Amino acid sequence: MSPPKGPRSSGGKGGGRGSGKGRGAKPGTPGRPGSAKQGLGKGGRGGPARSGPGGRSGNREGQRGTTPRGNRGGSSGQSKGPQKGLGGDQVEGRQAVRELLLAGTRRTREVVLAGDLDPAPILDDIIDLADEAKVTLREVSRNRFENMARTDAPQGVIAMAQPLREYEFEDLLVPDATGRDPFLLLLDGVTDPGNLGAILRSAECAGVTGVVLPRHRAAGVTATVAKSAAGAIEHLRMTRVAGLPKALGRLSAAGVWSVGLDAGGDTAIHRLAVADQPVALVMGAEGAGLSRLVRERCDAIAHIPLAGVLGSLNVSAAAAVALFEVARHRG
Amino acid sequence: MSPPKGPRSSGGKGGGRGSGKGRGAKPGTPGRPGSAKQGLGKGGRGGPARSGPGGRSGNREGQRGTTPRGNRGGSSGQSKGPQKGLGGDQVEGRQAVRELLLAGTRRTREVVLAGDLDPAPILDDIIDLADEAKVTLREVSRNRFENMARTDAPQGVIAMAQPLREYEFEDLLVPDATGRDPFLLLLDGVTDPGNLGAILRSAECAGVTGVVLPRHRAAGVTATVAKSAAGAIEHLRMTRVAGLPKALGRLSAAGVWSVGLDAGGDTAIHRLAVADQPVALVMGAEGAGLSRLVRERCDAIAHIPLAGVLGSLNVSAAAAVALFEVARHRG
Repeated sequence: MSPPKGPRSSGGKGGGRGSGKGRGAKPGTPGRPGSAKQGLGKGGRGGPARSGPGGRSGNREGQRGTTPRGNRGGSSGQSKGPQKGLGGDQVEGRQAVRELLLAGTRRTREVVLAGDLDPAPILDDIIDLADEAKVTLREVSRNRFENMARTDAPQGVIAMAQPLREYEFEDLLVPDATGRDPFLLLLDGVTDPGNLGAILRSAECAGVTGVVLPRHRAAGVTATVAKSAAGAIEHLRMTRVAGLPKALGRLSAAGVWSVGLDAGGDTAIHRLAVADQPVALVMGAEGAGLSRLVRERCDAIAHIPLAGVLGSLNVSAAAAVALFEVARHRG
Repeated sequence: MSPPKGPRSSGGKGGGRGSGKGRGAKPGTPGRPGSAKQGLGKGGRGGPARSGPGGRSGNREGQRGTTPRGNRGGSSGQSKGPQKGLGGDQVEGRQAVRELLLAGTRRTREVVLAGDLDPAPILDDIIDLADEAKVTLREVSRNRFENMARTDAPQGVIAMAQPLREYEFEDLLVPDATGRDPFLLLLDGVTDPGNLGAILRSAECAGVTGVVLPRHRAAGVTATVAKSAAGAIEHLRMTRVAGLPKALGRLSAAGVWSVGLDAGGDTAIHRLAVADQPVALVMGAEGAGLSRLVRERCDAIAHIPLAGVLGSLNVSAAAAVALFEVARHRG
């Protein structure tokens, strides 16, 4: 809808939001009973991955008093970490790579360019930003490039980066570094990577402060998700939980109001009074919608009033409408 | 976001909206000067196509007193017509095909199924509906099916149908058959078929009464558009115009208020007072946004307030947010 912007300072539109450093890095968040319980659950499933290279990040997290998480890559600055975390290590597409470099919240190892690209301002941005951050730039033949690419349309640009940092669920339940009340998005099994990426992009634009994904029923941050998110993954705090129903219980205990979105919901989304409280929006999977347990544990179920003949919106369109409706109330 | 619905009566959610017959088929809409002018422009470009098979639809339109349009397929009920119109003759994907059969607003010649499909309720719907409408059902091998398919993921179902009926621009400027004031969507050069389809789906769900596409700068209704629209093309009145700037002038003359959407717009979209007047939302192309002429001719330029770091929403997410914001005002 709008022309892409040229490079801007890290603060950008977010003003004094303190992008990158400090966000979510609250020292001493105490481990809560719920957190500990979930930690055990995860340990049981993810066993071998816990003892990753050196167990470094596990130790670091331990010092912060929160559940250790072996597959976490963000905080040490060098660790590649096991690949079982959120992912996001291969970023393709021009907007996504430019945002990766602009944000600077994780290390980029290399930017690979196809050798046959026509000049474009956004490519100049990418080259300048890579240069500034001392990131290796490599030009390869079109054939070689296509072999490296994991998405359908990488637009001639691929970046190899440190995997995304995974946040603690508990950290998302309190106001963020800039004092914004939680505005969370819980995705109950969105499996299409294009949809997941599009939803993350809309979420970032709507001012979401944290995204919660189910560990076993959702797409991870693959190259397609990263591309479709167009840089949103660099700015969003994300976490995964073993089960969304349990997570909803913890939200409730923390005073975060949960709103499920479903065609059968009894309240029109624009009639919700969510102006001045912490809120979590819960979206169901494509087709199937919210699972029964998740629906039961939401504080309210809202619907988007449809005025046509069709019975449903695309999941990412529904997410955009609902997210910006909540944003309007909070605005 | 919501579970797909089973078959429902034609009226469906739209209540007594008179889907199909009657919509847009207002007899005797007088030819206006603007229309005549545009007609000349089109004749100059589309010359040979005008004298299609028998020139039948041209004659029919002539009787209605509006600009003859050679490439129009809908009204005669049998004519395949030249393929230069809106398109939409090949529909792929389960939702899209079910809606095509449910709506019954154009003839379906044949439904082709891949031979190796697992049972699913929506396939039963499709088979029942095809049976009811006496549409030939044909099962073919997977190989043969893939050769017929034009989209990436046809979900084992392809329908061959009469091309979409193209409406007259002038017909969209007055209240529709059910008395709804115009709520139009003008797309200024959206080229990605997936985006175009997604936007059409959101538009239908938001209650848009007509869609205006530029004849030369937008994707037609290809199989990918049809699939992504998930049936919206069966219910939306669509037209193409030679130039959007001129069309905006005609909107203005007809008392339809035009709102362009652009990141640089001076009014937040939710502050627009569009409650009780005919309105047209104008969306720009991916990346480039609104063209200069189009922007200048809009009555207002609105933006969606962004609360994150990223500079823009995906065009289809932006469309969904803006369409439902207008719908909320009208609701």
